[in-house]
Amino acid sequence: MIRIANKHDGAAIHDIASSIKVFSAEEVTCVDELWEESVSIGSELSGYYFIVAEEDGALLGFACYGPRALTTGTFDLYWIAVDQRKKRGGVGRQFMQQSEKDIARLGGRLIIVETSGKAEYAPTRAFYEGIGYQKEAVLKDFYAPGDDLVIFTHKLI
Amino acid sequence: MIRIANKHDGAAIHDIASSIKVFSAEEVTCVDELWEESVSIGSELSGYYFIVAEEDGALLGFACYGPRALTTGTFDLYWIAVDQRKKRGGVGRQFMQQSEKDIARLGGRLIIVETSGKAEYAPTRAFYEGIGYQKEAVLKDFYAPGDDLVIFTHKLI
Repeated sequence: MIRIANKHDGAAIHDIASSIKVFSAEEVTCVDELWEESVSIGSELSGYYFIVAEEDGALLGFACYGPRALTTGTFDLYWIAVDQRKKRGGVGRQFMQQSEKDIARLGGRLIIVETSGKAEYAPTRAFYEGIGYQKEAVLKDFYAPGDDLVIFTHKLI
Repeated sequence: MIRIANKHDGAAIHDIASSIKVFSAEEVTCVDELWEESVSIGSELSGYYFIVAEEDGALLGFACYGPRALTTGTFDLYWIAVDQRKKRGGVGRQFMQQSEKDIARLGGRLIIVETSGKAEYAPTRAFYEGIGYQKEAVLKDFYAPGDDLVIFTHKLI
């Protein structure tokens, strides 16, 4: 079941982020910071919307999205993370479907997904391509020398 | 003369941002917010570095840059703004030279400039191309339908 996150999900979200092998310590801290801001002032004011996947009372993963400043209707999908130890087929796609539905409801028309060009992110890139997201731009050496930024986009309308 | 901004420059920076015809009210507010954060907790903690151009005791313009989160050595050049009423030849280029020098000193290796693909931004895009920045990506309809994001990059090392 995908549902809106509530303040009791913080520890599990941190735990899931920490379980993702390709997430650096800095990225886990970034998840924590977005979560704290989202909980303390709410999704609308913070611009960070968290949803979680729950099964038998345990969280399987989370996703976070929000509107991009200075745009009309463009949303970033910041993270989709599924616990590597409890991985279930289809949870990633369920997160995408729910995120797209939520973003459309919030007035979104364009979704941006930023990911890495590194080899260990090949499954991530294949996932977005597999659901029809368009690889629209690559910025060479963006994250670090040899680590490109790959930007996928998806039009909702 | 290009110098580091100090807390007394806030009103002039707001005034200059307001004088830029292509800046929306939302963009002026964004400049104000970045400035407030930079002044209240400092450039290093906020990640927003402001420099200004001063001539005969009056500010001609400002620039703002800072490191991009989750990258190693990538910096955003957020704004370069020169007062439309006091426009001087070469101030834009002086801002670029100083920003590049400062960013290199802060450990930067790659500069990102994001601008609009709209017709009224053609002089802005020509400016960056003229100083050798590379147009590396375009995201269609990013800012709004018909208003693309154009990303220029420049390698420092």
